[in-house]
Amino acid sequence: MPEFLKLHPPAEALDIYLGALSALDALPSEQIKTDAALGRVLAADVLAPIALPPFNRSTVDGYAVRAADTYGASASLPAYLNLIGEVRMGAAADIALLPHTAAVVHTGGMIPEGADAVVMLEDTDHARDAEIEIHKPAAVQENILLRGEDVQAGEPILNAGTRLRAQEIGGLMGLGLTSVDVVRRPRVGILSTGDEVVSPSEDPGPGQVRDINTFTLASLVSNAGGEPISYGIIADDYRQLRTAAEKAHAESDLVMITAGSSVSARDITASVIAELGQPGVLVHGISIRPGKPTILALAEGVPIIGLPGNPVSALVIAGLFVVPVLRLMLGMAPSERTAYIEAHMAVNIASLSGREDYQPVRLVKDGKQLLADPIFGRSNLIFTLVRADGLVRIPSEATGIAAGELVRVTLLT
Amino acid sequence: MPEFLKLHPPAEALDIYLGALSALDALPSEQIKTDAALGRVLAADVLAPIALPPFNRSTVDGYAVRAADTYGASASLPAYLNLIGEVRMGAAADIALLPHTAAVVHTGGMIPEGADAVVMLEDTDHARDAEIEIHKPAAVQENILLRGEDVQAGEPILNAGTRLRAQEIGGLMGLGLTSVDVVRRPRVGILSTGDEVVSPSEDPGPGQVRDINTFTLASLVSNAGGEPISYGIIADDYRQLRTAAEKAHAESDLVMITAGSSVSARDITASVIAELGQPGVLVHGISIRPGKPTILALAEGVPIIGLPGNPVSALVIAGLFVVPVLRLMLGMAPSERTAYIEAHMAVNIASLSGREDYQPVRLVKDGKQLLADPIFGRSNLIFTLVRADGLVRIPSEATGIAAGELVRVTLLT
Repeated sequence: MPEFLKLHPPAEALDIYLGALSALDALPSEQIKTDAALGRVLAADVLAPIALPPFNRSTVDGYAVRAADTYGASASLPAYLNLIGEVRMGAAADIALLPHTAAVVHTGGMIPEGADAVVMLEDTDHARDAEIEIHKPAAVQENILLRGEDVQAGEPILNAGTRLRAQEIGGLMGLGLTSVDVVRRPRVGILSTGDEVVSPSEDPGPGQVRDINTFTLASLVSNAGGEPISYGIIADDYRQLRTAAEKAHAESDLVMITAGSSVSARDITASVIAELGQPGVLVHGISIRPGKPTILALAEGVPIIGLPGNPVSALVIAGLFVVPVLRLMLGMAPSERTAYIEAHMAVNIASLSGREDYQPVRLVKDGKQLLADPIFGRSNLIFTLVRADGLVRIPSEATGIAAGELVRVTLLT
Repeated sequence: MPEFLKLHPPAEALDIYLGALSALDALPSEQIKTDAALGRVLAADVLAPIALPPFNRSTVDGYAVRAADTYGASASLPAYLNLIGEVRMGAAADIALLPHTAAVVHTGGMIPEGADAVVMLEDTDHARDAEIEIHKPAAVQENILLRGEDVQAGEPILNAGTRLRAQEIGGLMGLGLTSVDVVRRPRVGILSTGDEVVSPSEDPGPGQVRDINTFTLASLVSNAGGEPISYGIIADDYRQLRTAAEKAHAESDLVMITAGSSVSARDITASVIAELGQPGVLVHGISIRPGKPTILALAEGVPIIGLPGNPVSALVIAGLFVVPVLRLMLGMAPSERTAYIEAHMAVNIASLSGREDYQPVRLVKDGKQLLADPIFGRSNLIFTLVRADGLVRIPSEATGIAAGELVRVTLLT
């Protein structure tokens, strides 16, 4: 069965695929400790159980006052207030301010009852033992952080699908939410196929090479928030591959199969993927380099992705197609903005019109300019990517990029 | 002891500090499994033990030939070669090609002795049982990937200080390097101070707030490749803080102390840091917002960093100063290029000349334009950063950024 592929543009291929997957059931959630939830994705919206800050706080070191008592005050004609005490940090402000009185308050300290402003220490003088001079009028609420100014009690603070960064972990802890419901990591079965492929711990015989794809793809899955599960190296044999793929399909939320490198080996992979269940293959063939023979399929609710056997192609394609699928399964927004670095292309590079190319580049400083230096190789060998800082996308309509042209380099992280 | 700080520009502060730390001993290394080394940093240079690919391989499905036998061949006047066998995938090419013979070879298969080119299947025809037609001449080495073309045996492939990405993991495995020497994760002691601070699992009384810094900073340390160790919440008390800081100093590779929020609490932190050992405080006060009262110190070979108590300030400053220190301790290159997203500032924002500002912004799509919408707040509350996608740096010489101006947003990840 030779390969005659109807090539889809990459964006169209992804649209078709994510569209089909959007009807899948959500992954189950699990409750974990918030301080172990960095990088995990929220399974449900979170409401603030309390207000933050939980009480009116001073933003400076100074004196809590009634603003009206300071009106008209100046250095030459200060207002005099009776000092009636100090609000200690971490303690209730058990002082009530009557007119013409003031209380010492520290940054972050609680504003006592009756006070409606804080005068900074610098704008005062300690006149006598129990009296202070105010040199500057304070407006109502000046230097006060109001209860609930950061977050109101009951306010929705985080949505389902939010990936937890350092600040979300801190915010949850600040609200006393020491455990949190997150989406279970998607289990991603990885099958590496090829008669010539042996385990890295083996000594390859003549004609054999060590497995790379299992490990690059597992790393990518981990980085994207999934749990990689290796199903080992499978020979280019229909029966063996089908047995292994069925096992992976039964146990995983997503299955990735790298195809053998010859056409007949790729045909075996394509047949097995097509027969795992309905609706089957949705996309076979993408107008992209590297990665043309990519297969995007869905079998009885489990996405199955057939990747090229070449390690560079497999890793690039997984970044473009597997990562968005994992995001969808985790309930994250369809796309996150990807940061980049602008650089000037160091040399001319050619590309076929009608095909989207992803060119590995190294970033090189050249005087004040940053250059994107393409890493060429006759075949996409893994050390091409080891030597690369990032990828440059050459759009489908372009026939190449001229030396000196400004491009956006997406870092390989 | 009031605060009179000589403010250093941020870049100068970092230079002074990294300069002083560059004399520190390297962290010890540890040998771990390569498939568990994602994100870790190499402790030593790695040489390739073998060549990759380990043998000459075909890059196409076709016939291994002697190039000279195909010269002058065309569709109308094909060259005829005797088919003497097939090189199976993963097996030695135990065929030796004599003149005017060819052997079937698959993509990735081993090139048999005597062959010096591969003709693609598409450029041939199967004439008779043991004979093929060649329709196109092949050049020497055409469609052959040479042994060592990716990596030569003995070639340095990865340097000490390299952080291992998916492709490095794959490259190491492809070379049979199933374990690897990495730098031990720097142990980072974290002390959160403040009389008003209680554990997130406690119900805060009046005037109390829950600890946030321990968790935001631990998350940042984890992301940067360190191992965070919490030393708990310490009261604003010289003796208690000194005892806790000495313990952290003895047990950690780096110590971070967030100061209490009042001036007197900050003074206690500064005194304790100054007295932990030689050479002591190298920088106290940075012309930056947020984070002016930052302290960069070195005590008997252990970096000690005093951070502001405000959670946003502490997290921003840790990103700017703690992360580079961790990189240095891990043996990584002094700076990595940081990716960004360009956007137009949504509104005017003001800044003081002579001070570098880091403004949290949200990225908002506005028609075809991407806007950086600043998140303002009277104090830097943690949900300011929760609502932010990234930070915009306002350089020291600027007095602000005008609405519409193009800025680079560094994502908070």
